[in-house]
Amino acid sequence: MTWTTDNQKNLMLFSGRAHPDLAQAVADELGIKVTPQTARDFANGEIFVRFEESVRGSDAFVLQSCPHPLNQWVMEALVMIDALKRGSAKRISVILPFYPYARQDKKHRGREPISARLIADLMKTAGADRIITVDLHTDQIQGFFDGPVDHMHALGQLAGYVRDNYSTENVTVVSPDSGRVRVAEKWADALNGAPLAFIHKTRDPLVPNQVKSNRVVGEVDGRTCVLIDDMIDTGGTIAGAVRVLKDAGAGDVVIATTHGVFSDPAAERLANCGAKEVIATDTLPIPHEKRFDNLTVLSIAPLLAQTIREVFENGSVTSLFNGSA
Amino acid sequence: MTWTTDNQKNLMLFSGRAHPDLAQAVADELGIKVTPQTARDFANGEIFVRFEESVRGSDAFVLQSCPHPLNQWVMEALVMIDALKRGSAKRISVILPFYPYARQDKKHRGREPISARLIADLMKTAGADRIITVDLHTDQIQGFFDGPVDHMHALGQLAGYVRDNYSTENVTVVSPDSGRVRVAEKWADALNGAPLAFIHKTRDPLVPNQVKSNRVVGEVDGRTCVLIDDMIDTGGTIAGAVRVLKDAGAGDVVIATTHGVFSDPAAERLANCGAKEVIATDTLPIPHEKRFDNLTVLSIAPLLAQTIREVFENGSVTSLFNGSA
Amino acid sequence: MTWTTDNQKNLMLFSGRAHPDLAQAVADELGIKVTPQTARDFANGEIFVRFEESVRGSDAFVLQSCPHPLNQWVMEALVMIDALKRGSAKRISVILPFYPYARQDKKHRGREPISARLIADLMKTAGADRIITVDLHTDQIQGFFDGPVDHMHALGQLAGYVRDNYSTENVTVVSPDSGRVRVAEKWADALNGAPLAFIHKTRDPLVPNQVKSNRVVGEVDGRTCVLIDDMIDTGGTIAGAVRVLKDAGAGDVVIATTHGVFSDPAAERLANCGAKEVIATDTLPIPHEKRFDNLTVLSIAPLLAQTIREVFENGSVTSLFNGSA
Amino acid sequence: MTWTTDNQKNLMLFSGRAHPDLAQAVADELGIKVTPQTARDFANGEIFVRFEESVRGSDAFVLQSCPHPLNQWVMEALVMIDALKRGSAKRISVILPFYPYARQDKKHRGREPISARLIADLMKTAGADRIITVDLHTDQIQGFFDGPVDHMHALGQLAGYVRDNYSTENVTVVSPDSGRVRVAEKWADALNGAPLAFIHKTRDPLVPNQVKSNRVVGEVDGRTCVLIDDMIDTGGTIAGAVRVLKDAGAGDVVIATTHGVFSDPAAERLANCGAKEVIATDTLPIPHEKRFDNLTVLSIAPLLAQTIREVFENGSVTSLFNGSA
Amino acid sequence: MTWTTDNQKNLMLFSGRAHPDLAQAVADELGIKVTPQTARDFANGEIFVRFEESVRGSDAFVLQSCPHPLNQWVMEALVMIDALKRGSAKRISVILPFYPYARQDKKHRGREPISARLIADLMKTAGADRIITVDLHTDQIQGFFDGPVDHMHALGQLAGYVRDNYSTENVTVVSPDSGRVRVAEKWADALNGAPLAFIHKTRDPLVPNQVKSNRVVGEVDGRTCVLIDDMIDTGGTIAGAVRVLKDAGAGDVVIATTHGVFSDPAAERLANCGAKEVIATDTLPIPHEKRFDNLTVLSIAPLLAQTIREVFENGSVTSLFNGSA
Amino acid sequence: MTWTTDNQKNLMLFSGRAHPDLAQAVADELGIKVTPQTARDFANGEIFVRFEESVRGSDAFVLQSCPHPLNQWVMEALVMIDALKRGSAKRISVILPFYPYARQDKKHRGREPISARLIADLMKTAGADRIITVDLHTDQIQGFFDGPVDHMHALGQLAGYVRDNYSTENVTVVSPDSGRVRVAEKWADALNGAPLAFIHKTRDPLVPNQVKSNRVVGEVDGRTCVLIDDMIDTGGTIAGAVRVLKDAGAGDVVIATTHGVFSDPAAERLANCGAKEVIATDTLPIPHEKRFDNLTVLSIAPLLAQTIREVFENGSVTSLFNGSA
Repeated sequence: MTWTTDNQKNLMLFSGRAHPDLAQAVADELGIKVTPQTARDFANGEIFVRFEESVRGSDAFVLQSCPHPLNQWVMEALVMIDALKRGSAKRISVILPFYPYARQDKKHRGREPISARLIADLMKTAGADRIITVDLHTDQIQGFFDGPVDHMHALGQLAGYVRDNYSTENVTVVSPDSGRVRVAEKWADALNGAPLAFIHKTRDPLVPNQVKSNRVVGEVDGRTCVLIDDMIDTGGTIAGAVRVLKDAGAGDVVIATTHGVFSDPAAERLANCGAKEVIATDTLPIPHEKRFDNLTVLSIAPLLAQTIREVFENGSVTSLFNGSA
Repeated sequence: MTWTTDNQKNLMLFSGRAHPDLAQAVADELGIKVTPQTARDFANGEIFVRFEESVRGSDAFVLQSCPHPLNQWVMEALVMIDALKRGSAKRISVILPFYPYARQDKKHRGREPISARLIADLMKTAGADRIITVDLHTDQIQGFFDGPVDHMHALGQLAGYVRDNYSTENVTVVSPDSGRVRVAEKWADALNGAPLAFIHKTRDPLVPNQVKSNRVVGEVDGRTCVLIDDMIDTGGTIAGAVRVLKDAGAGDVVIATTHGVFSDPAAERLANCGAKEVIATDTLPIPHEKRFDNLTVLSIAPLLAQTIREVFENGSVTSLFNGSA
Repeated sequence: MTWTTDNQKNLMLFSGRAHPDLAQAVADELGIKVTPQTARDFANGEIFVRFEESVRGSDAFVLQSCPHPLNQWVMEALVMIDALKRGSAKRISVILPFYPYARQDKKHRGREPISARLIADLMKTAGADRIITVDLHTDQIQGFFDGPVDHMHALGQLAGYVRDNYSTENVTVVSPDSGRVRVAEKWADALNGAPLAFIHKTRDPLVPNQVKSNRVVGEVDGRTCVLIDDMIDTGGTIAGAVRVLKDAGAGDVVIATTHGVFSDPAAERLANCGAKEVIATDTLPIPHEKRFDNLTVLSIAPLLAQTIREVFENGSVTSLFNGSA
Repeated sequence: MTWTTDNQKNLMLFSGRAHPDLAQAVADELGIKVTPQTARDFANGEIFVRFEESVRGSDAFVLQSCPHPLNQWVMEALVMIDALKRGSAKRISVILPFYPYARQDKKHRGREPISARLIADLMKTAGADRIITVDLHTDQIQGFFDGPVDHMHALGQLAGYVRDNYSTENVTVVSPDSGRVRVAEKWADALNGAPLAFIHKTRDPLVPNQVKSNRVVGEVDGRTCVLIDDMIDTGGTIAGAVRVLKDAGAGDVVIATTHGVFSDPAAERLANCGAKEVIATDTLPIPHEKRFDNLTVLSIAPLLAQTIREVFENGSVTSLFNGSA
Repeated sequence: MTWTTDNQKNLMLFSGRAHPDLAQAVADELGIKVTPQTARDFANGEIFVRFEESVRGSDAFVLQSCPHPLNQWVMEALVMIDALKRGSAKRISVILPFYPYARQDKKHRGREPISARLIADLMKTAGADRIITVDLHTDQIQGFFDGPVDHMHALGQLAGYVRDNYSTENVTVVSPDSGRVRVAEKWADALNGAPLAFIHKTRDPLVPNQVKSNRVVGEVDGRTCVLIDDMIDTGGTIAGAVRVLKDAGAGDVVIATTHGVFSDPAAERLANCGAKEVIATDTLPIPHEKRFDNLTVLSIAPLLAQTIREVFENGSVTSLFNGSA
Repeated sequence: MTWTTDNQKNLMLFSGRAHPDLAQAVADELGIKVTPQTARDFANGEIFVRFEESVRGSDAFVLQSCPHPLNQWVMEALVMIDALKRGSAKRISVILPFYPYARQDKKHRGREPISARLIADLMKTAGADRIITVDLHTDQIQGFFDGPVDHMHALGQLAGYVRDNYSTENVTVVSPDSGRVRVAEKWADALNGAPLAFIHKTRDPLVPNQVKSNRVVGEVDGRTCVLIDDMIDTGGTIAGAVRVLKDAGAGDVVIATTHGVFSDPAAERLANCGAKEVIATDTLPIPHEKRFDNLTVLSIAPLLAQTIREVFENGSVTSLFNGSA
């Protein structure tokens, strides 16, 4: 007379239209398919989404990378989450390999938004239960979301590539500005205790936001410099850093970054800035016209797939990063 | 020993970058200025906003129209609201002359979002206390927001123009589809009790979303037809309706709409569809390249200004519309 | 040393006191029993509810129809949901076959409530995770609830009955007012593409809410008219529509509605209005004294039972309606 | 160029239909009028409310007493609050002279609701910022609302009447059960330190909720007994208490209560139970057919008016009760 | 191609540092271990917690008793809950054997907090889904939490001990003040219908909070008095009550309480107050220096373990208390 | 007939018991008094608070510094906020000169809390509308609160003192670790473009959280080093940094910090570490026993007072910091 059922759950992967190759690569790693859907833009830019299969009771993972035009893809993710919520998905995890608006993580001056917090709240409001992301601009953004954030790191993969391709004995890790020195320190640990340096920008307090000069702090003369950053957008800062390093006598400069935003004219700048190699992951799509000779792209798909697997099966994501996630 | 102050409040008007002319026109009507701000896009599309004056304690009105690329302007509005909330504005009213995603106000089929509700929730989450809008696609969208919605109507202005320029004796009001007949009825009342007609689309239930045929229901032979709609996007439906009316023997056809979205190829279609005149308001910007000979644009600015004044001074918005708002 | 258990879930059906026959019919369809409970009114009208079995961890479905006195039954549903939440039910789905206050789905004029949204919020506040309902007054009410709404349609059942009992060749589908023409169009599609008509009411804009005259728009002379509406309350509008149709030369008039509210004097009006047959479902209880000779009542229980089954087993509700729910 | 206004606020009083006399009496005390409104029931019991004046920016006080049929009046209050919220009232205070469902303030046994908390949450959800109430069944109910609760006490008025009309020298204060002894103690303090007694009910733990016997604990022989309770519903308990007191040799018995619910057959029971006088306030309407010879009704209107005044003018409500509110 | 997994869940028990012995005893009863964690205080008092095992997907039970310094342990519980929420525990139940701030369950006078409600809200905000607690100061505190509260009672255990060790024929149950008489009545029922008495404190209404005299109401002359209270803090009230009873001719006095807070100088007072025995449970730790000769401590661990088991396995907690929880 | 009042507001300042001297100094700056209140601890550590004046309608500022025992003071602040909310304060701003748990602003490793976010949520839940704080450990903590955060900086005051007392020509600004280099850069700008250095700690990735060695990056030989940090707790890190600098040939070392936590054995360490002077503000109380010879304490009261004034009068806080707050 009572009706009982096993409370099985099934994994469903959904992909926004921003970076379908990454979604497919993740699906392939997991041995599943991306759930088919209809997604299109109305003439005025409104997005329409409809899933072609029942999502009821699913453990849903929505993968949306956010390249340009970023707001388009943010809104698409929100619309997809709303459709999943109303379609009775059991749990909704949003995978944002590149967290949008991460640079606006504080009020730099008065009367500014904190858009990175806003993004977290918008995701929550739409119906997201969890965020999975890679190399946040600052770790504190984890705390912007009221729920679990699984924060992946590409450092292991990137540093491994450097170790495999360069001698670490002569390496100095360089932060392009004063705010990334802590991250550079983690790189130094990963490169067998390499020394550190950073570019010090002086500003005139009476002229806000204008840099007066750039100085290298730390020893770089004759060293192979691994210049690191979480993201490279137009490449201006990083190309300038290469120049400053070269002026200070540095040897080879290798650039390593997680997020290759590569807005124009990044490709041209990076190709010609004097760096020996630029290493990035594919958290964002890097189309052919943005690629250049000395660019190496590592795939983030295995890391995302492994994380999804652990989340779905209630394993340990922390163990994937030796405790640091 | 106690410190008391008069709790004065001051009106501040903010404008997104989507339709600055409308904001300026509203400000001119009110005799105030648009608050100066810095707003720009990062290379990857992220929006940055900063107000140049203190907004602390203000009664803030944020005017954002949402033409193409719509998601860009939705996100800009959200970012501005967040900055106002964090900057200690006392009350935040968002003016959306054209409510985005209004057509997605229900699940037409399963596994779809209800994006019009999502928009209301996003605004609330960012910090909006009130929404002011014009001619919602359906009135029920008012109920999507948890707070006051001041819902303006352009019918008075549009119908007044028709009354002033056309004889209403021979007029029939026509709805382009079965879903707008109720609105057409309001038009009929405003045009001295004119008769009604609508275009009936038949569908094959076995072939979803495909229209089999269009029939006019109601008398249009020899009549001047006022064909009404809340918005015209690409103009396909409305131009088709003109054709059906002409085939049915209609005389002049005048098109009246609140929201001239006019996505390509609307301008061409409307110019050549056989309609005598197309009347729209400027809730959305209509740039020169989208304008055409028989287009008449009425300004919505006086209505918005009057509404802002009543909201600010705690007057009555309802009285602006004879009780119907 | 670790303690793990299969996370089974079991279905429990609860019934308010408004329409126990429907709950029993649904339970019979599912082969389960209605969970026994104590429910009574205190002398001053306060409701007391206590469940006689543990509800801990259950997938709870609360069925409450809302006939007169409607507020009594709304409050009983809220009290039951609160008891389930505090009693640790795992998930609470509220089945409202007739959604209360659906007609108050917008502000018709200023300073009015939007009670249909209020009902959705009250259910959410009490603890409801989902709403299951039948033929909402307007589809947009789905968007009033912040969560999944499974929206059933009785059209298939009702139209099937008409097809089985009347020749559809001579049928015209008639909407009793301008606001239901879109629904009438769906009926027309379901009746093999039958033609449409509606009753056009003219109002004097200077005398709010008063109808001046009723006109039929569309051809009804000599046709069998299927007059449709989502609900019939006192029957005044629908009986008036029959009269207008008859005056316009209509043949047989058949009335079809989902919700037979049938407040006095509906039974008398419908019995004597000249309609050949009135078809309704039992989403609301229709006691003997409200029944009349030409009334046919179809049971909604199989549809509700099938929906509960799909929700419980994470099947697809959409598939029950060929994609449209 | 800036537009500033004094942020004046104005008091508006709204009344549900449950107890209009009380609202009028409060308005008279304050020298204002009750805001005119349209309020009516649809045939199926749905309530419709519309205010006839603009409520924008008002400091709104909604007075709703909750006699039988209580759920009707609870829902009316919620609908009124929703209309005020959507009509842009600045602040909404709900005055519930008799707090509904106060007796359901805990789970007496498992699988029960806590409806008194539910009521607080429903009021909050609809839009209430504050609750004003009189003599809660238990003080803890204050904590059920997430916001200010102004909790009035009628003890001063009731005890004043007793002191004025009876010699307090021979008085014993009696609680009708073990749960009200604390309140009786406050009465004893107010009646010059009168002694206390209470009726002790014994129960058989094996037969839940059944009382085996009633014993008086404390001295009542030859004493004038003031039998107190917060509310009297059907009067069964209190009439039984009079009988037990009389059997124990008590002299005159005077009954004092704040809330005269007086559901049938309370009037008959109280008239014939042997009590010399029954004193109540008019927090609930007591129509003529419920009144009886030895009933005295004190008006609560001055207390409510004074509270509204202090709330509106940001005075001190606490000072009205010597610190105890 | 689809990936489905059994949705198993596993029980994990976590312990704050306030009362590890109780957590261990509960774990032993359940045959599981307490999850290992790092917990320490920073030099300025900030608490740091880290779990040593993955908590992802677990059904987490956090046991925290709250002795002095109580705020320390409240905050530790909140921090642990936050870590569980962010670590993706599936469900979080907080076990507070002694509910903190329970005595502040109402505003005794104006401008006071209701800290017991605050505690419930803080737990909810941190991420608690459920509270499990023992013998709340007032039952209404259940309603302060927006979710399930499993409210255990130690009465069965305590009264059983009294029945086993004292003849109940000559027993009178005594409440130390007017506010506990209802609880004393439950004790009387559990002790075969023993008679009742309580200590009546008179106050001067002009001198707030000052007691003028203590009188015994009820017969205690020559009786064995079981003096009950939910908690004993410094023991002043209860020791005073023993004195008043002795003065009134009472025979042996036995004190029974659930929560032995025993702040200084409780141990000394209780040892010397003249009571024959003091019975308490170990909901709070009672270290050696607080123990005294005539103190008996009963373990609450079996009750908590049984409750956890029922909650985890979706059994019935109500059945553990014959329907009263 | 209508009743209107000027909506004046009055400023009230409340002080927790952690740092009354600072509250008094702020009150003196503003020319007001600290609102009198009763605050005491129950024997088991529970806090009780009651305000001695009506707080109704006030613009309330609650100042609570959080020294050891920090959790005690956090809870006191929460209890005070709750009492203000329930006492009808109009707006509640919490002034936390030292933001508690600021160091736990991210998950350093898995299964950790983000307690700084938790604190923001607890404040919000209790009823805080705004947070005012000084020199957050990281700026991102602003984004943890859902509302305005006025973030003050002591840099101007501290750097001004250095400029007044030391020649800036020979100064190098030193960050004690890699995470504070960005802040050091702001100091460098404030000290006329002084050069930078930092202490680089190397870690063995296989031995978590253990530092292998400390190296100075940047030139310090013969330079006057201004060693900066946001807070100094036990002083271990900072004293070690002095040693490393001295070993590297530095001249005088001056330590500057906003928050002098100074937990044992900080005073001893700082007195003897070789630093010439230690400069701190009094955001936290520094009692006599923690003071030492070369310690200079600057008062933060004028800054807090000025901020309160701007907030109360809706002036501009940003202007106090040349746009950077």
